[in-house]
Amino acid sequence: MSQDPTKIILTEDEMPRQWYNIQADLSKPMPMPLGLDGQPIKPDDLAKVFPMNIIEQEMSTERWIDIPEPVLEILKLWRPSPLYRAKRLEQALGTPAKIYYKHEGVSPAGSHKPNTAVAQAYYNKEFGIKYLTTETGAGQWGSALAMSCKLIGIECKVFMVRISFDHKPFRKTMMKTWGADCMASPSNLTEIGRKILAEQPDTPGSLGIAISEAIEQAVEREDTRYALGSVLNHVMLHQSIIGLEAKKQFEKIGTYPDVVIGCAGGGSNFAGISFPFLYDKIHGKELRVVATEPEACPTLTRGPYVYDTGDVAKMTPLLAMHSLGHGFIPPAIHAGGLRYHGMAPLVSHVLEEGLIEATALGQTECYEAALLFAHTEGFIPAPETSHAIAQTIREAKQAKEEGKEKVILMNWSGHGLMDLQGYDAYMSGKIEDYPLPEELLQQSLAAVKDHPKI
Amino acid sequence: MSQDPTKIILTEDEMPRQWYNIQADLSKPMPMPLGLDGQPIKPDDLAKVFPMNIIEQEMSTERWIDIPEPVLEILKLWRPSPLYRAKRLEQALGTPAKIYYKHEGVSPAGSHKPNTAVAQAYYNKEFGIKYLTTETGAGQWGSALAMSCKLIGIECKVFMVRISFDHKPFRKTMMKTWGADCMASPSNLTEIGRKILAEQPDTPGSLGIAISEAIEQAVEREDTRYALGSVLNHVMLHQSIIGLEAKKQFEKIGTYPDVVIGCAGGGSNFAGISFPFLYDKIHGKELRVVATEPEACPTLTRGPYVYDTGDVAKMTPLLAMHSLGHGFIPPAIHAGGLRYHGMAPLVSHVLEEGLIEATALGQTECYEAALLFAHTEGFIPAPETSHAIAQTIREAKQAKEEGKEKVILMNWSGHGLMDLQGYDAYMSGKIEDYPLPEELLQQSLAAVKDHPKI
Repeated sequence: MSQDPTKIILTEDEMPRQWYNIQADLSKPMPMPLGLDGQPIKPDDLAKVFPMNIIEQEMSTERWIDIPEPVLEILKLWRPSPLYRAKRLEQALGTPAKIYYKHEGVSPAGSHKPNTAVAQAYYNKEFGIKYLTTETGAGQWGSALAMSCKLIGIECKVFMVRISFDHKPFRKTMMKTWGADCMASPSNLTEIGRKILAEQPDTPGSLGIAISEAIEQAVEREDTRYALGSVLNHVMLHQSIIGLEAKKQFEKIGTYPDVVIGCAGGGSNFAGISFPFLYDKIHGKELRVVATEPEACPTLTRGPYVYDTGDVAKMTPLLAMHSLGHGFIPPAIHAGGLRYHGMAPLVSHVLEEGLIEATALGQTECYEAALLFAHTEGFIPAPETSHAIAQTIREAKQAKEEGKEKVILMNWSGHGLMDLQGYDAYMSGKIEDYPLPEELLQQSLAAVKDHPKI
Repeated sequence: MSQDPTKIILTEDEMPRQWYNIQADLSKPMPMPLGLDGQPIKPDDLAKVFPMNIIEQEMSTERWIDIPEPVLEILKLWRPSPLYRAKRLEQALGTPAKIYYKHEGVSPAGSHKPNTAVAQAYYNKEFGIKYLTTETGAGQWGSALAMSCKLIGIECKVFMVRISFDHKPFRKTMMKTWGADCMASPSNLTEIGRKILAEQPDTPGSLGIAISEAIEQAVEREDTRYALGSVLNHVMLHQSIIGLEAKKQFEKIGTYPDVVIGCAGGGSNFAGISFPFLYDKIHGKELRVVATEPEACPTLTRGPYVYDTGDVAKMTPLLAMHSLGHGFIPPAIHAGGLRYHGMAPLVSHVLEEGLIEATALGQTECYEAALLFAHTEGFIPAPETSHAIAQTIREAKQAKEEGKEKVILMNWSGHGLMDLQGYDAYMSGKIEDYPLPEELLQQSLAAVKDHPKI
């Protein structure tokens, strides 16, 4: 390999064979998920929602968990993903920082989401499940699960948040191309959907609502389960392959990042890139890890650490997490994948432990960053990814001011080719920022007041 | 590398440093391009359309031409592209054939087109040009040139064939994201556009018309030139990097293809994958090379080998090529990039020399093939690419019938994420085949009757 390649690549033989489970390395154990009665959840309580093999994985504290061979074989369709040095972006910024990005947009669905979608489809099929239901915000997760179900050989039904469904007609076609059903949420197919439509016929929807609908349909049938694209421990586990690969790639060039950055909606791409590096931090290595979220949905930066449900209809257990309140419906920003009221319990936990930092950015700054990226590195990022890029640019500018040759790693979670209407709006001057009013936040948080305390 | 990887990859150090020019290896020289007066074209005659450094390359018969270092640096943003073994497609077909595909969809624009777009933008900038004009059919070429101009640092204006412009609103946004202007063709900006709109206000447009408009705008200004995404010799040259990489990749696994397949519209992705293999064939190697086109626009299979212009307004020289007549407006099939009346003179020439075969397929067969590909290999192909896939499936089925372990290589020229409306139409049963009526072909060919004979 030359001294200064644009991409650091791994062979398929060099792919990680095990996922990393950060639960093995936490100084304090995770607060238990609780039922609405305040009692700890038992595996059986989840058995109608998830297959038992996934529930076991969700609760495991084993540090290393084998990736099944059939999952590895499918991941090889696009993995290992390249680690890029963003030389041209560095030049444009005139920064002494070295910027690396892990390109998760190379998957057929265009994002990091298939890393867990393939695994979840596999475990469900192994357990004898025939149908998976799920929700999707921007469409990245729904597309990923649609593809993965087709590749594994089970059926898939996707509830897509209304605003994204309307803005992104081709996402539906994409899921259909991979054989899945896709409908707008709230829908008339579920009790909770009908209830919300009756109250707010014009609602843009939210991930919290769509999750409720998908779970409602899953628990009704023996051969059907639900799959979640983020938030839960097993999803963070499956995504750890991103950071594990990145560490091997840095080893190849004898470098190590000073800062690791990921955008955070439910937390999965952020956890995927950062948890393997947090292992090093926990064991004494110095580095900063930054989660970046939209200021319109500032879960980590302004949401308290509370017990809350993952969905609107309270069909999920109470999870210990940073939350804006399960009824919070974020403004219609274009980064649909970041419009979630809560944050993965594991990501919330490492924030509480002081292992990571969090920042919140407005979408205009993020689109500006996305355009600069496309103009220098070529690839057009997803609006979600643009949050990581904007934070990276902030860090690179700071490095310039300080004259420091900082090494920055960001997770480039997906491409934006299915999200171009947001770019069109930005370039036409139609994009606004939506800082969350304190009053609205407090109203929303009223919903968690009666929940058990952590 | 393991014995049976899904992807055969090259490092950036292993990238070809020179393009291959098949003109050095033809048994008969290419017929000269002629003016409308029947006299051979001289370099100066093209000087208002192309910069002189590209004109020299167009006419060169040197076998190997160095790739400039700044072009290589940009190509490294996505090259070398992976060579895939389509194991899961083979399984689905139950074929003993080994199917390999060269994945050109990994570029930021999503197709092989940037391979030449970057080079052309570079040479124009070197020559002092500030603006490039071009045409685009499906939008792959326009996007590629928009991106390349931004990365190189010159301005870009794209005339997009009306039917694609209307079907693919996000292609325009994509080009705009990379800083280019994009307008529907025929437009009111040019004389030829206004003339055609007056005669046929509802025309779906064609590549032939859009080329005329782009050239008309280029020749009007000193600092402006025109760039063509296919057809010309220098484009085939720049695309040879595809086949050169593929040969190195096959060397790595000790294999060699029995059949090489590419779809053919203007001919550039077909030439790119096949010409480096034709070098071997010319020097004694046994292999078959197949160009696949739509039966709605059957240039190679039904168009005669004649002198014809590359555009409707006769602004280009007369080129010796298979043509359906420069006025031919193909039916509105979804593979917009294959809707061209002519075929690259070099591709036409190697067909005349008996070095390649050609087939024509209906779009329903191609969409069926595309779905099978997406369901097995994950990636959703462009409608153009689906023609190569359908031919590959024909070959693989034949290998099954004959019980032969044939090695097939296809060029996977681009992904279809920007072309999903065609998939939607196909899955809704709204796709038809359009075999070209003989009478219509003869009418169209009347336009070339007075042209000089080859």
